[in-house]
Amino acid sequence: MGAGLGQPIGLRAMRLAIDKAQEVGCGFVAVRNSNHYGIAGYYAMMALEAGNLIGMSMTNADLLVVPTFGRNAILGTNPIAVAAPAGQERPFVLDMATSTVPRGKLEVYDRLGKPMPIGWATDERGLDTTDATRVLQNLKTRAGGGLLPLGGAGELLSGHKGYGLALLVDVLCGVLPGAGYADTIYPKTPEGKPLPANVGHFFGAWRIDGFRPVEEFKAAMDDIIRRLKDSPKAEGQTRIYIHGEKEFEEAERRQREGIPLVGKVYQDLQAIAGEVGVAFDL
Amino acid sequence: MGAGLGQPIGLRAMRLAIDKAQEVGCGFVAVRNSNHYGIAGYYAMMALEAGNLIGMSMTNADLLVVPTFGRNAILGTNPIAVAAPAGQERPFVLDMATSTVPRGKLEVYDRLGKPMPIGWATDERGLDTTDATRVLQNLKTRAGGGLLPLGGAGELLSGHKGYGLALLVDVLCGVLPGAGYADTIYPKTPEGKPLPANVGHFFGAWRIDGFRPVEEFKAAMDDIIRRLKDSPKAEGQTRIYIHGEKEFEEAERRQREGIPLVGKVYQDLQAIAGEVGVAFDL
Repeated sequence: MGAGLGQPIGLRAMRLAIDKAQEVGCGFVAVRNSNHYGIAGYYAMMALEAGNLIGMSMTNADLLVVPTFGRNAILGTNPIAVAAPAGQERPFVLDMATSTVPRGKLEVYDRLGKPMPIGWATDERGLDTTDATRVLQNLKTRAGGGLLPLGGAGELLSGHKGYGLALLVDVLCGVLPGAGYADTIYPKTPEGKPLPANVGHFFGAWRIDGFRPVEEFKAAMDDIIRRLKDSPKAEGQTRIYIHGEKEFEEAERRQREGIPLVGKVYQDLQAIAGEVGVAFDL
Repeated sequence: MGAGLGQPIGLRAMRLAIDKAQEVGCGFVAVRNSNHYGIAGYYAMMALEAGNLIGMSMTNADLLVVPTFGRNAILGTNPIAVAAPAGQERPFVLDMATSTVPRGKLEVYDRLGKPMPIGWATDERGLDTTDATRVLQNLKTRAGGGLLPLGGAGELLSGHKGYGLALLVDVLCGVLPGAGYADTIYPKTPEGKPLPANVGHFFGAWRIDGFRPVEEFKAAMDDIIRRLKDSPKAEGQTRIYIHGEKEFEEAERRQREGIPLVGKVYQDLQAIAGEVGVAFDL
């Protein structure tokens, strides 16, 4: 919508998908002419508030990921998020980039000067590399290479599946609403001047009681979650997680103990507060 | 439906999803009390016939896959299939098990006596192994271990994402319609006698013109496909594939040259033809 921030239109579109689902059983809304919308899982989780919905959200994104057998990053990390409520247990909240890791993981290895695992990214020739610094530099200069789809390079560990999921997200978020896709998301003039972005999103919700009573669904969610969590652990492991569980626990801890801020972020917030004239009382 | 074959009810449910989509824009149908339904992509591709739909199909399945940090196989290979039409190009047909590889790949390495790649499966302790024979034996005796979710063991290469996709499929196919899920799909009496299976499926279709004119969508599909295929190749690679492309080419080749049959399969078909009294003229 007018190449504005992704968050306001994301909220509006997800609310519309939810309203449609409440009315007729399921609802899907696609957005074009948008920008980065933040956290995919946020929108999927909006559907949890009603208590009778499963929510879904996807977005395409800046070019960071190479297709299987490709040399250039022409797909985004294109996340998929789905949230489904449980009864006594916490909701299932899957929120995953379709690349093996996000760029932030490479930045950590870059800062530490540590070799990263094979399967995360390729160099400018499109070959496996452990050199995070080089990959980040190559992405900046568009020299080739980038993040790998989930499953890594080639087909041996099924990198073509992660590539397929990234492409699926680009079809639903880019091609379907008439947004940008692949290397057309951030268009430029022939002279290389950036034009407004054309990121696309896809939102959806299903009403659970279109399929079975909500209380039955929630009881079965509790049961599958417990069956997974209570099942025997691999040697050396003590816990099996459900998706979203780590984040819920961290959110609870931070609500109790506060949110640690890096000095730089604290200073930035302080400066911005001064600029816009609001009290800064952290 | 009555613990019958998955194929007839799969056809019926996907047709219903398609009819619903044609009528109101999108349609979803879930099935319980079913069995193995064959090829996930077959149902997704049924939506292609109308020319104005995107189709989706998922199923849960026999316990072969270990959750991240788990020791026992309590999830299926739980495939996800989505099919979207293009214009001049072939359709995009993603049809992927959410495990790194299907069991069949292990059977090939077992027959060849070759060590399989790390990331495909774990042993009875839940640890990485290259011993396909041992994994297959362990699966048969339920001794522990099994196939790994897409991304492999642990979180280093994001195996928790493949595990999350497998769980998502179990939520939509098992929990949502009231089918079995996790280790309740193939129930047994307390004495260990097998009871009727309770496999579940999930089918869906979206009408493209609910979002944009179909011809525009197909032209953009052609464009994204060409942008991917024409993009630079990794060193040593000559071709970037779109999902479904290899299978379409193989189908065309087999329509021209015939379908190679293993001797055992040929004999089985001959015997069955004799039993049911139909001519066998292969």
